[in-house]
Amino acid sequence: MKRVGQYTLRFERCPAILGHAAVGGKKESEGPLAPDFDQLFSDSYLNQESWEKAESRLQTESASLAIRKAGLRNTDIHMIFAGDLLNQCISSTFGLRNLNIPYLGQYGACSTMAQTLAMAAMAVESGAATYAAAVTSSHFCTAERQFRTPLEYGAQRAPTAQWTATASGAAVLGIGTGVRVCHVTVGRIKDLGVTDMANMGAAMAPAAAQTLLDFFADTSTAPEDYDAIYTGDLGTVGTELLHALMRENGVPLSRHKDCGLLLYDRDRQDVHAGGSGCGCSACVLCGHILNAMERGEEKNILFMATGALMSTTSSQQGESIPGIAHLVHLSV
Amino acid sequence: MKRVGQYTLRFERCPAILGHAAVGGKKESEGPLAPDFDQLFSDSYLNQESWEKAESRLQTESASLAIRKAGLRNTDIHMIFAGDLLNQCISSTFGLRNLNIPYLGQYGACSTMAQTLAMAAMAVESGAATYAAAVTSSHFCTAERQFRTPLEYGAQRAPTAQWTATASGAAVLGIGTGVRVCHVTVGRIKDLGVTDMANMGAAMAPAAAQTLLDFFADTSTAPEDYDAIYTGDLGTVGTELLHALMRENGVPLSRHKDCGLLLYDRDRQDVHAGGSGCGCSACVLCGHILNAMERGEEKNILFMATGALMSTTSSQQGESIPGIAHLVHLSV
Repeated sequence: MKRVGQYTLRFERCPAILGHAAVGGKKESEGPLAPDFDQLFSDSYLNQESWEKAESRLQTESASLAIRKAGLRNTDIHMIFAGDLLNQCISSTFGLRNLNIPYLGQYGACSTMAQTLAMAAMAVESGAATYAAAVTSSHFCTAERQFRTPLEYGAQRAPTAQWTATASGAAVLGIGTGVRVCHVTVGRIKDLGVTDMANMGAAMAPAAAQTLLDFFADTSTAPEDYDAIYTGDLGTVGTELLHALMRENGVPLSRHKDCGLLLYDRDRQDVHAGGSGCGCSACVLCGHILNAMERGEEKNILFMATGALMSTTSSQQGESIPGIAHLVHLSV
Repeated sequence: MKRVGQYTLRFERCPAILGHAAVGGKKESEGPLAPDFDQLFSDSYLNQESWEKAESRLQTESASLAIRKAGLRNTDIHMIFAGDLLNQCISSTFGLRNLNIPYLGQYGACSTMAQTLAMAAMAVESGAATYAAAVTSSHFCTAERQFRTPLEYGAQRAPTAQWTATASGAAVLGIGTGVRVCHVTVGRIKDLGVTDMANMGAAMAPAAAQTLLDFFADTSTAPEDYDAIYTGDLGTVGTELLHALMRENGVPLSRHKDCGLLLYDRDRQDVHAGGSGCGCSACVLCGHILNAMERGEEKNILFMATGALMSTTSSQQGESIPGIAHLVHLSV
């Protein structure tokens, strides 16, 4: 592992994604990426007593599936990096409690899939772990009632609001062949003073631009050098802002796709500005993107998930919404 | 970095703690460890508008101090690992927002100091970071109102309850001399079904025993091989349980001290079963313990912080309280 420039890590052994799994709910099963899921549930409770327990179950399923698809057993995994949006990251704790794998809880809000993937790759690259796993999830119903209003109110959603995915993604890394992690850029917190909790895309776009610019500068590459640049959940508003910020900085963005705009059909599925939540970019990566790379349709991509690092308390106290974005460069 | 046994990492370069700082509040300034703090505040608000902002300020101060004491500037730090107890880890986000350092949010509840220290050590050992920082905090008033009852109620505290420290600790790691990280054991989630939110010590003791037993087995060492074994915040109840569990497993614990029992004078300070909160073991490590090691009073110690991975929601839904414990072996 070598540092390149100020913010980027270049991997030498380039850990491979040996197994990956995407699990989703009903709305996800009705979206354009449904064929890419390993498992889809038609009921928001997943046979559990509460939505929180259902979200935990999403992680249990995706992690277990990814480990099995890698041809490994739980005892082979030396570290599992996981986190989620719920207070004290309970989806991860309770979802992974019975796996008996050394556990390192992560908090990156909706950037968690990129963060856990980066941490797992660093662990494998350095020999700290022979195999390491990265997992995250979100659930529409748990997020709405924790961050917004009880679902029973039927509150009207702002046009800039995004739809929290009911989904989980998991990846298992080790030294091997296939899709491999070549670079990681760890993001810095960026806060331009956005305070609108119904407009997360705008709060996260500046962090996304910062991390992308850092990565391109550190590696002396440009957007055209990649088959695709995937952002995690900027939605329509954040995407537009990201493009404007990149143009302003002299690096116009091309080949860009946003996980929040891929997961649902916005014309048909009433998700307003697009999908969001840790599970959104996680299931798009661990289903759609990695499947496409394994089929050889894309060979060299950037995956950058963004997070809004606020809580209801910080917003109620008048704080702005700081953003963060972590980037992982994947190549076949 | 080499794996030893099933759960332990042995470091070869052994990253050193180049700078460390402990910051505390009024109660901490009245306790027996007061002389070990770098900074003490006599007011719970730290000149901020809210307790949450005060807790963020604790992190700003401890991180900045530790970086300065290491003789470094913010731009020298390649990664900062931080987390806390508040929903969505806002103390860390807002406290470290202006440092402009690549940020990786961690969630390990009260085990966070050991977790962030382990992560920072792994980053430096592997060359992912030339310098990395580990930070955490807690605040009595923010924790009480988030996890228990509004302070204004004046609710009576159970005898098994612990007192959340108003404190922060930070450490900066790099290759160098001084106190060095030799081994790390990442904990597994352990849940024996404890459901009493006023008895965290009991919930965490099984995880503490598990990680200690893993470490001793992996390294073929015993408690007597160390000058001291510090646990993070088991308090009186958890400490007694840990000793019983270790005896049952044929490894009776000696030279054991608990950060939660060191920070306050239980006879005089009315903290019931002892101190707790991420900031408790963090300030005891980054003040008292590291100072003692630098004076040569202790040369070879284990620092193991424990966390209870629950939320108010999980407890309200009848879930038990899973525990975790991460261990760091420090040596001069």
